Amino acid sequence: MVQFTHFDEKGKARMVDVSSKEVSEREAVAGGAINMQLETFRMIQEGRIEKGDVLTVARVAGIMAAKKTSDMIPMCHPLRLSLVEINFTFVEEEHRIDIESLVRATDRTGVEMEAMVAVLTAAATIYDMCKAVDRAIVISDVHLLRKSGGKSGEFIFKEKR
Amino acid sequence: MVQFTHFDEKGKARMVDVSSKEVSEREAVAGGAINMQLETFRMIQEGRIEKGDVLTVARVAGIMAAKKTSDMIPMCHPLRLSLVEINFTFVEEEHRIDIESLVRATDRTGVEMEAMVAVLTAAATIYDMCKAVDRAIVISDVHLLRKSGGKSGEFIFKEKR
Amino acid sequence: MVQFTHFDEKGKARMVDVSSKEVSEREAVAGGAINMQLETFRMIQEGRIEKGDVLTVARVAGIMAAKKTSDMIPMCHPLRLSLVEINFTFVEEEHRIDIESLVRATDRTGVEMEAMVAVLTAAATIYDMCKAVDRAIVISDVHLLRKSGGKSGEFIFKEKR
Amino acid sequence: MVQFTHFDEKGKARMVDVSSKEVSEREAVAGGAINMQLETFRMIQEGRIEKGDVLTVARVAGIMAAKKTSDMIPMCHPLRLSLVEINFTFVEEEHRIDIESLVRATDRTGVEMEAMVAVLTAAATIYDMCKAVDRAIVISDVHLLRKSGGKSGEFIFKEKR
Amino acid sequence: MVQFTHFDEKGKARMVDVSSKEVSEREAVAGGAINMQLETFRMIQEGRIEKGDVLTVARVAGIMAAKKTSDMIPMCHPLRLSLVEINFTFVEEEHRIDIESLVRATDRTGVEMEAMVAVLTAAATIYDMCKAVDRAIVISDVHLLRKSGGKSGEFIFKEKR
Amino acid sequence: MVQFTHFDEKGKARMVDVSSKEVSEREAVAGGAINMQLETFRMIQEGRIEKGDVLTVARVAGIMAAKKTSDMIPMCHPLRLSLVEINFTFVEEEHRIDIESLVRATDRTGVEMEAMVAVLTAAATIYDMCKAVDRAIVISDVHLLRKSGGKSGEFIFKEKR
Repeated sequence: MVQFTHFDEKGKARMVDVSSKEVSEREAVAGGAINMQLETFRMIQEGRIEKGDVLTVARVAGIMAAKKTSDMIPMCHPLRLSLVEINFTFVEEEHRIDIESLVRATDRTGVEMEAMVAVLTAAATIYDMCKAVDRAIVISDVHLLRKSGGKSGEFIFKEKR
Repeated sequence: MVQFTHFDEKGKARMVDVSSKEVSEREAVAGGAINMQLETFRMIQEGRIEKGDVLTVARVAGIMAAKKTSDMIPMCHPLRLSLVEINFTFVEEEHRIDIESLVRATDRTGVEMEAMVAVLTAAATIYDMCKAVDRAIVISDVHLLRKSGGKSGEFIFKEKR
Repeated sequence: MVQFTHFDEKGKARMVDVSSKEVSEREAVAGGAINMQLETFRMIQEGRIEKGDVLTVARVAGIMAAKKTSDMIPMCHPLRLSLVEINFTFVEEEHRIDIESLVRATDRTGVEMEAMVAVLTAAATIYDMCKAVDRAIVISDVHLLRKSGGKSGEFIFKEKR
Repeated sequence: MVQFTHFDEKGKARMVDVSSKEVSEREAVAGGAINMQLETFRMIQEGRIEKGDVLTVARVAGIMAAKKTSDMIPMCHPLRLSLVEINFTFVEEEHRIDIESLVRATDRTGVEMEAMVAVLTAAATIYDMCKAVDRAIVISDVHLLRKSGGKSGEFIFKEKR
Repeated sequence: MVQFTHFDEKGKARMVDVSSKEVSEREAVAGGAINMQLETFRMIQEGRIEKGDVLTVARVAGIMAAKKTSDMIPMCHPLRLSLVEINFTFVEEEHRIDIESLVRATDRTGVEMEAMVAVLTAAATIYDMCKAVDRAIVISDVHLLRKSGGKSGEFIFKEKR
Repeated sequence: MVQFTHFDEKGKARMVDVSSKEVSEREAVAGGAINMQLETFRMIQEGRIEKGDVLTVARVAGIMAAKKTSDMIPMCHPLRLSLVEINFTFVEEEHRIDIESLVRATDRTGVEMEAMVAVLTAAATIYDMCKAVDRAIVISDVHLLRKSGGKSGEFIFKEKR
């Protein structure tokens, strides 16, 4: 039977008890997209404003936020991450930047939230750096792409419902 | 001529100088959506797991994150927020929850990022609390809905491009 | 011979060296009370203001603070908590709410401080949310109820001196 | 009619809107007590362990925590504090240390919570530094002593109910 | 008579009371140097490892740390910074990178510490990113170069004693 | 061949993957110096302002900052420190205070950055507490003195280049 693990029997929010879970290698990949006007896309891409810096700042922000996930997400366990990596892909025809994060830890619980937070913060940072020229930027399709490790094992995101 | 204000003439990341901007009333509203399986939607909505708590935890997380925006987003100025409010709407037919944040401050720069961060963190928290039953939840359509105050004045988001 | 372990031989504050301690299951329970006017107590309890929310916000605050204990308490070691739980009991005759926290970790040092910080922050949050109607709320009797694990073993609080 | 200002009409937690409040001088004084065994009290007081350091560390912790109040207490507004001061008094006959904090700010809302958090954190730090010799230390009587400034004006705590 | 303003009459650490100081434009410039082996210097400078990124990451770190100064330095007041800027200069003959920060705020107290923390953190970040190839990097000559605003007025650093 | 480990093949900043490194005892010692006017040195040393307190506050700040290293330094891994210790030495003839930190952890990566951050923050705190009487204080010679543990093994700093 399906059960939310973040609430005890009386519906009170609490951290899930992971003390009896085994330490294992955990990995998660999350993705998202940031949609902008063609002009904004070109300005980032063609480096009219020193190309690359927007993405470097966004990458640093995403990595730093991943490390603070348990500070932001109330029921998340503090984890010692062993890797955070963030990649960007320019999607020409739709003047969209795709964001992908990879997170690893050797711990008692998974790193899905860290991967999600890395993507969301990198996206928010791109928005912040470009909002003076394009306030209508949209962040979308943020979700877990895959995860491995732990009792629940492998998960791979299937095409949209 | 359009110019990114987050880079100085040599393309180096820096905080925009707001010292000569005037203090004024600032307001921003941001929105987003979180798409889930019908079963997950029902579990939250019908309160099988003490309805409301998922959303209360998400609301608290979003409010707290809004206050830490300048900690997360590298080039954001620290602001003293005077209001943060987060609302959720259940969209039945698409088993989707819409999130809307309202932020106010009396300061030298706008609160768009605070409103965006509030929505993103509330969405991430809903994901975190439900991921044990639905790992494929998708966060989408996160963008600024409107803002007012400051020299750039009013902005209202127009229907998607 | 009794010795304070937080000061080295010259009286200088330092973190205790726990590098040679063994990793073991640690658990701590702390408790406290928050005393208020009958009217305030009834407003929370009878849900005139959407009962339960004050306590949910306080619970979330307590859990989040427990995770940040080593940020607040100078000589505390950073720990990876595996569980934080907070419970509230309404004590009718004295219009008092009792708070109890339970914290677990598998680590080299105990989680007493995390349990204490959870109670103190939950109490402070209740004060914050009710202070507009009752500024004279008093937080009292905050102490460790029991702890287990580690070389010093079991501790159980005995009735007040 | 008494009303909780931290919940909107539908009982949802939110920060109170202070944007229309006037900036004024705010001051708050909070107090609390920490009760310990005579032996622990003597060790701190007689400086067998380099007297004063326990209290200096506790004072620094309390001041630093006051500045982070809006990070810990979900519905607190971020404020720019202009003063935080913490004092300790040794109460011989009851081997108790009394803690008092004074906080000032020039802002749109009061500093009661900052004063409370300063006392609670200083108390928790004393507990942390002494717990190796006395796990049964009790923190009690933490409450607002007085506050001034703002529309609600002066408040002075009256003897216990 | 010279007096330390961070201690009250009994030598207890406290934040200086700035509530009666006037709000004015504050500016501070701090500088420092980071000395490394020629090979390390060339690797950063010639971009064998994608030149510029080490400095971009260091710049982002310095800016973010400046905003958290009051979190790190116990007696610092929280300030709303209006500008943080960090510049690097390659000093060929001594294979040294000079760091300079500029910070502005409109507030009741100066921004010297924010400027210092920006330089120190940028330097520490360069060390972190290069330590795999050069563990003997030395950070030196970190000091205030000039400040203006406030009652104490202008300060300009004079050549070394 | 020497390689920077903080950049992947395309020069993008990322955290180094330490998931395959072995957990081992790590230790690092860092040092630095803070140079001041003789008068400032005497005021601290002779305790005219309650001697010891400047150094105690600086020590607390350094220890707390060491625990937050991964928050400040973008590519640093979060570690559970088992010891942080900071010592000060008065160097009479040059009215200079030398700072030394010792950090230990049982983890997958070294604690060099934690030791560096402890020294830098202690130094910045001394500057902060004395800047009202001596704005020209200089922080210098901050570097790693030695480290042990991990695959790269022992490192000992050799006399200046």
